[in-house]
Amino acid sequence: MLIVMKIGATKRQILEVVQGIEQIGYEAKISKGAQRSIILIHGNIGYIDEAYFNKFSGIMEIIHISRRLRLVYRENMGGDDTIVDIGGGLKFNDSYSQIIAGPCSIESRDMAMETADFLSSRGIKIMRGGIFKPRTSPYSFQGLKEKGIEYFSEAAKKYKMKTVSEAVDEYSLNLLNEVVDVIQIGARNMQNYSLLKKCGSINKPVLLKRGFTASLDDLYVSIEYILSEGNQNIIVCERGIRVFEGTKQRSIIDFLGVSDFKEECHLPIIIDTSHATRDRKKVHSLSRAAMIYGCDGLMIEVHPDPDKALSDGPQSLSFSDFDLLLIDLKNLSQFAKKPLKLHNSGQKK
Amino acid sequence: MLIVMKIGATKRQILEVVQGIEQIGYEAKISKGAQRSIILIHGNIGYIDEAYFNKFSGIMEIIHISRRLRLVYRENMGGDDTIVDIGGGLKFNDSYSQIIAGPCSIESRDMAMETADFLSSRGIKIMRGGIFKPRTSPYSFQGLKEKGIEYFSEAAKKYKMKTVSEAVDEYSLNLLNEVVDVIQIGARNMQNYSLLKKCGSINKPVLLKRGFTASLDDLYVSIEYILSEGNQNIIVCERGIRVFEGTKQRSIIDFLGVSDFKEECHLPIIIDTSHATRDRKKVHSLSRAAMIYGCDGLMIEVHPDPDKALSDGPQSLSFSDFDLLLIDLKNLSQFAKKPLKLHNSGQKK
Amino acid sequence: MLIVMKIGATKRQILEVVQGIEQIGYEAKISKGAQRSIILIHGNIGYIDEAYFNKFSGIMEIIHISRRLRLVYRENMGGDDTIVDIGGGLKFNDSYSQIIAGPCSIESRDMAMETADFLSSRGIKIMRGGIFKPRTSPYSFQGLKEKGIEYFSEAAKKYKMKTVSEAVDEYSLNLLNEVVDVIQIGARNMQNYSLLKKCGSINKPVLLKRGFTASLDDLYVSIEYILSEGNQNIIVCERGIRVFEGTKQRSIIDFLGVSDFKEECHLPIIIDTSHATRDRKKVHSLSRAAMIYGCDGLMIEVHPDPDKALSDGPQSLSFSDFDLLLIDLKNLSQFAKKPLKLHNSGQKK
Amino acid sequence: MLIVMKIGATKRQILEVVQGIEQIGYEAKISKGAQRSIILIHGNIGYIDEAYFNKFSGIMEIIHISRRLRLVYRENMGGDDTIVDIGGGLKFNDSYSQIIAGPCSIESRDMAMETADFLSSRGIKIMRGGIFKPRTSPYSFQGLKEKGIEYFSEAAKKYKMKTVSEAVDEYSLNLLNEVVDVIQIGARNMQNYSLLKKCGSINKPVLLKRGFTASLDDLYVSIEYILSEGNQNIIVCERGIRVFEGTKQRSIIDFLGVSDFKEECHLPIIIDTSHATRDRKKVHSLSRAAMIYGCDGLMIEVHPDPDKALSDGPQSLSFSDFDLLLIDLKNLSQFAKKPLKLHNSGQKK
Repeated sequence: MLIVMKIGATKRQILEVVQGIEQIGYEAKISKGAQRSIILIHGNIGYIDEAYFNKFSGIMEIIHISRRLRLVYRENMGGDDTIVDIGGGLKFNDSYSQIIAGPCSIESRDMAMETADFLSSRGIKIMRGGIFKPRTSPYSFQGLKEKGIEYFSEAAKKYKMKTVSEAVDEYSLNLLNEVVDVIQIGARNMQNYSLLKKCGSINKPVLLKRGFTASLDDLYVSIEYILSEGNQNIIVCERGIRVFEGTKQRSIIDFLGVSDFKEECHLPIIIDTSHATRDRKKVHSLSRAAMIYGCDGLMIEVHPDPDKALSDGPQSLSFSDFDLLLIDLKNLSQFAKKPLKLHNSGQKK
Repeated sequence: MLIVMKIGATKRQILEVVQGIEQIGYEAKISKGAQRSIILIHGNIGYIDEAYFNKFSGIMEIIHISRRLRLVYRENMGGDDTIVDIGGGLKFNDSYSQIIAGPCSIESRDMAMETADFLSSRGIKIMRGGIFKPRTSPYSFQGLKEKGIEYFSEAAKKYKMKTVSEAVDEYSLNLLNEVVDVIQIGARNMQNYSLLKKCGSINKPVLLKRGFTASLDDLYVSIEYILSEGNQNIIVCERGIRVFEGTKQRSIIDFLGVSDFKEECHLPIIIDTSHATRDRKKVHSLSRAAMIYGCDGLMIEVHPDPDKALSDGPQSLSFSDFDLLLIDLKNLSQFAKKPLKLHNSGQKK
Repeated sequence: MLIVMKIGATKRQILEVVQGIEQIGYEAKISKGAQRSIILIHGNIGYIDEAYFNKFSGIMEIIHISRRLRLVYRENMGGDDTIVDIGGGLKFNDSYSQIIAGPCSIESRDMAMETADFLSSRGIKIMRGGIFKPRTSPYSFQGLKEKGIEYFSEAAKKYKMKTVSEAVDEYSLNLLNEVVDVIQIGARNMQNYSLLKKCGSINKPVLLKRGFTASLDDLYVSIEYILSEGNQNIIVCERGIRVFEGTKQRSIIDFLGVSDFKEECHLPIIIDTSHATRDRKKVHSLSRAAMIYGCDGLMIEVHPDPDKALSDGPQSLSFSDFDLLLIDLKNLSQFAKKPLKLHNSGQKK
Repeated sequence: MLIVMKIGATKRQILEVVQGIEQIGYEAKISKGAQRSIILIHGNIGYIDEAYFNKFSGIMEIIHISRRLRLVYRENMGGDDTIVDIGGGLKFNDSYSQIIAGPCSIESRDMAMETADFLSSRGIKIMRGGIFKPRTSPYSFQGLKEKGIEYFSEAAKKYKMKTVSEAVDEYSLNLLNEVVDVIQIGARNMQNYSLLKKCGSINKPVLLKRGFTASLDDLYVSIEYILSEGNQNIIVCERGIRVFEGTKQRSIIDFLGVSDFKEECHLPIIIDTSHATRDRKKVHSLSRAAMIYGCDGLMIEVHPDPDKALSDGPQSLSFSDFDLLLIDLKNLSQFAKKPLKLHNSGQKK
């Protein structure tokens, strides 16, 4: 910790701060600059709350060098990437990028089957599907719950796909933990620390979505809540942060935030290109750009009949839309930092 | 719902939209303006998802007249204020404003007793105290949990005070529901819809804090989740929204948002002046301004020894700070829209 | 204009609004919905200020159908793209995308020459170069001013390049108008309406940068100020909008805003990938993504010796960095909506 | 300047940074903490651009101790408040607060006279009035220009009032400089550095409005542009920063920003309570709160007939509205940090 004194701080003020530091058991070193003095605190391991220094005068600013968090930063963890292996040879944060696709919600056995059939035929091996849905109105479709689990599991088993679904509380977390391969925590629950701690104590990969108004620092706290309970298998998901226009509300993919995240944190990060907009055409353009910008994977909503979807229809791609996008992504893949890895034994195209 | 067509939309485009409306069972009325046509949809009760209209061309904008939510708006509820009575003659949203005060966290039996003794001697009858704490680091003090409940209840009972404490999940909600008078939902859990629904099904007042990046519309959705489960006893709390400066992060009390809330929603709203800043002097100034601006009450952090507080020390007032503030608030009270109601039988000042 | 009445508005309140509309010479039509009444105003050409309706009660919301602006919207201008031709066969908004490159500031005759030589050898025919610089400190280098004009013109002439440079007031606008091919208005002056009007009355293309905290609606007002004075040759430039992180300040390219702009406005829009970050590697990644996302061109800072640049060094590409980027862009160009148009008669690569 | 090295930075990396510092003529001091090393740079006077250090590896963060700006900070100027005296015994930043009132725009000789008559009778001695207006549409009323100057001067002279009016470019600045007592720079021109420099070289107080999306740091740069040219008579005006709601756009007075400003900067700051909202009732509430929160003055729009105002009608107070507000402000004044100073020889109330 570093205490920057005001220009013109008196000797007495400097002395009092030094004595204050020594009183709580640390060592103080004064460094005199051309304009002002700086006091360095030595001997601390970890973060010191600056509240203690409120009572001293002559202080301009307190700068933390030690960080409050421990496990989320790349530099604290030796510098390497943490690879998250979700089974079936599917890894996040190695040299390929993955695609997670599927409907916003599992709506029926038939649509689960139809979607799994389609996706697996295209080489996609990870399917998303909402079963417990936090919606913008309490009167909107809230997911099939237990029935949805049954349909999703059956479809995934038949087509040998890995599954991702969102938990919204302890009850749904326990249910999903039995059957899905990756537990998703949605943007609205990003700061539900109680739920995050429970995710930290299960033995299953977690896909954590960044809240749509969360800073990267907010996100790091949430990640640390999971890591500190012992679960390192975290895939982070950028889904767009809120940007405000005069009379409209939009999201925007924070591409530069993705780069900053890769530099600062050792975990994989994927981009959800469906939730930043409510328009299929833009999902197509954004997915292309995300692929070329560079990340560890994409998450894309696909639905057999988007116009009739019970949730998120406007942004869901139809099967033919998705095929068009996949052609583009394959073409671009050769120029991507992390090329696409499709698992296309049975691909029909 | 209202569909505004583009300037130059063709007759055919207009006809197709009209037919589309009729196909889903509603009536369409065309209104031709000087520049463009507007199509009004009649016969709908409630919100229509605009997704359906994505497939039509020539549309400039879709405007919703019916709202997605039902119970949160004043106009839907007959226009009157909903008074929240927490017992002991303490009401929110009548013609007086209330003060809720107390420490960020209950730290020990002694400090709980000491604070309750002090506050009740000043005529304050509602005490806040954190028992389950969602903190900015998983390594910070997370609350006394079960022990805290014991201490807080004992103090409240002895000094005949009503209690407010935060629930962070179903477990803590069930525990607190047995013993405290008002359940608080914190800013980070404002969009934890699963927890909100549980709050809707208990028979106890809920103090819902607005998230620090939530719009009023986000807040209304959260309120509706509680209302729709049958609990109308909701006190909303503005605690500052995030404002960003170059290298600092600050909160700012959204006074105008408080006015807008009062116009649009029938529920009481109070202002937490402690969390918007980490500086006691500003808590003093903000509390004065909030009192004069107008709201249904204030929530203020008070601690017997702020410099040693386990959480939120920098913004907590000491007893003598609080006394100074109270003098100011009493003086200003005569000019406030809702004067202060202190319960000062035993007041010693 | 559309006046939405509150649920429960009385007949009398509705009647008063209708009479109020008729008093100012318009026609009112009432449309009764299931829940509430709507009053449509007919007969107006253009925007009515809603201030007039403040005195009536029972109104929930006033919705404008007519817009305050006239020339900026695509639909008002017949729907076609406006192509901006800056001479020498260089066009913005046709089916190709253009690259504008060059140093932040013209620093000397030699560096101007060296850069022009390099760029033109790579097929780049539009050079940027700051001569009047609005900097983040009044003590930073403010541009070479008159001398800079001389050097820039000489270099452009020798290498047959078109030039772009920023005007900051009437004086610099008049000077630059004599010699450069495109006048740039910087982000900080986006709402300097007086300067925009002057840009509207000159006979030269204008490159208008979106302010880093401006909404698209703010941008449209600024464009309208230029258009309304008679100059249609406007190239808009997205340079990143401010995104705030805990303790850092970043910009972020608003890709979705670029799409919205293309839908709503008839003018070309390019992306400046240098100003959103202060890091060359990110300029490279962002430029690739911008090319693939789709826009009318890129603006990129290039400097012979970025580490010694008098301004914006950290984000400037060296010649070899730029060559690496150009290889990537050429490869990606085949998959872009608007492929790159290089003018490579003399290209040496 | 302070260079914080990454945990695990090698000795070689540290050495290279040290040598790099010495190469540019400064002294480097290494301070080893428990986890990481810090390198302090000594010998610099003023701000060093961190760009130079981009080429070194192992650096986590660069922290500036010296600031880029010189004159704006209180601590650099000896700590005292700068009092701005606009003549006639009217001072900003002494122990009283001032009221500036008047119409958004001067619309006619009669309304200028009528307003000046009314205000001076109430003890208000500073009148605002727009003559050159930057409006949200180029088709809205842009001010009376030369004629407005004549009317405003005449009214001010007759009623012995000081005048404030906005300059939008060099031309209007030169005209106004001849006749008004305080030159206003509006929010949209806050970053028009060319105009600010011109304000720095005139011998007249400047009222600088904070932009509605400007951070305090942005504001400090703008102030420094004026100060660095030699004009210290600057009154800063907080007029609300943009807050975004789902479908509405609002401003919000940044009260905490006002406190931060007072701590950091030596200049006076007033609050414009009219522009943050378009609703008279809220102007009343905000003005009361601003008075009690504490600042150096208020700026309030008053108009003889607000419903017919050519600009900003909805937020303008009528004379009777203003009288009601003034009663409230006088009552509250006794409890304000800086009581109101009215100049009420001729007051009739």
